Amino acid sequence: MEKKLYTLGLLNTRHFTAYLDEVTLRTGKTSRRLKIDHPEAVAIVPFVDPQHILMVRQWRYAVETETLEIPAGKVDPGETIEEAIQRELMEETGYRATTIKPLISYFPAIAYSNEIIHIFSAEILIASHRRFDEDEISAVEVVSIKDAMKMVKNGLIRDGKTIIGILCINLAI
Amino acid sequence: MEKKLYTLGLLNTRHFTAYLDEVTLRTGKTSRRLKIDHPEAVAIVPFVDPQHILMVRQWRYAVETETLEIPAGKVDPGETIEEAIQRELMEETGYRATTIKPLISYFPAIAYSNEIIHIFSAEILIASHRRFDEDEISAVEVVSIKDAMKMVKNGLIRDGKTIIGILCINLAI
Repeated sequence: MEKKLYTLGLLNTRHFTAYLDEVTLRTGKTSRRLKIDHPEAVAIVPFVDPQHILMVRQWRYAVETETLEIPAGKVDPGETIEEAIQRELMEETGYRATTIKPLISYFPAIAYSNEIIHIFSAEILIASHRRFDEDEISAVEVVSIKDAMKMVKNGLIRDGKTIIGILCINLAI
Repeated sequence: MEKKLYTLGLLNTRHFTAYLDEVTLRTGKTSRRLKIDHPEAVAIVPFVDPQHILMVRQWRYAVETETLEIPAGKVDPGETIEEAIQRELMEETGYRATTIKPLISYFPAIAYSNEIIHIFSAEILIASHRRFDEDEISAVEVVSIKDAMKMVKNGLIRDGKTIIGILCINLAI
């Protein structure tokens, strides 16, 4: 077990906070830990039919590149996980899920963040009219499971939650 | 594309830095992004025989719990990925790899960190005498692939890199 002695500094964004803490290690020595206090998050593998899913293209500031990912986002205060799934799907793709099913919950960056991502699969109905949040998303694409798996294998998909979602549906987890 | 306007604040640890930046979004609006500038990292699925791997138990300050993970760590300045794999294996388990093979490289927390984790499988020789870094690791355990997969499915393993490593070897990626 490691215990906080004191916080040396912190950074606040609207949704989460980064702390730099002085801590004691299990052997009694002291060290410093960076810890991001992050809300729960959801990610969705949205099936438009049994062989195809929706994915979103977006710019990722931290890695300075555009990526192809499954829709995802933070659970807002007072919101249930199911509500967050429907809201994020609507914001990022313009669609709602008709059914949702949990796939896996995991810690993406356990060394420095308490973020937990709950990944669900969902069935969605493609409608003719749709809008999505153009501040965050540049395109919504229909991708076959086969192509998604290929992109995981050849390194074109490099986002952790997207890789886990695609591997889980291929393993029928 | 999103562009930095200026950095509002930062936190430094010995190995990485968290920045809070004011940025312009693709639509021209402004927002704030937290970005962790993190060195490359390695993670290893270390086979002691075709059906068993080594895993490590360690306290994770960010999630306040002890976890069961594959060995992993940051690539030190001036070190190759292969050297980092051997050093981390030695520090965390007390063993060296006889062969290593790349499995996948990915971004664990693409929304706020530029960390990339390179996961490798490795073959290691179990020797009678071994030491590991007791500041970080509380136990080294031999786990069957079957049990590891079960623990991914039932939520006992919740660490992202460990889940991806175990799913990859099950899918023979």
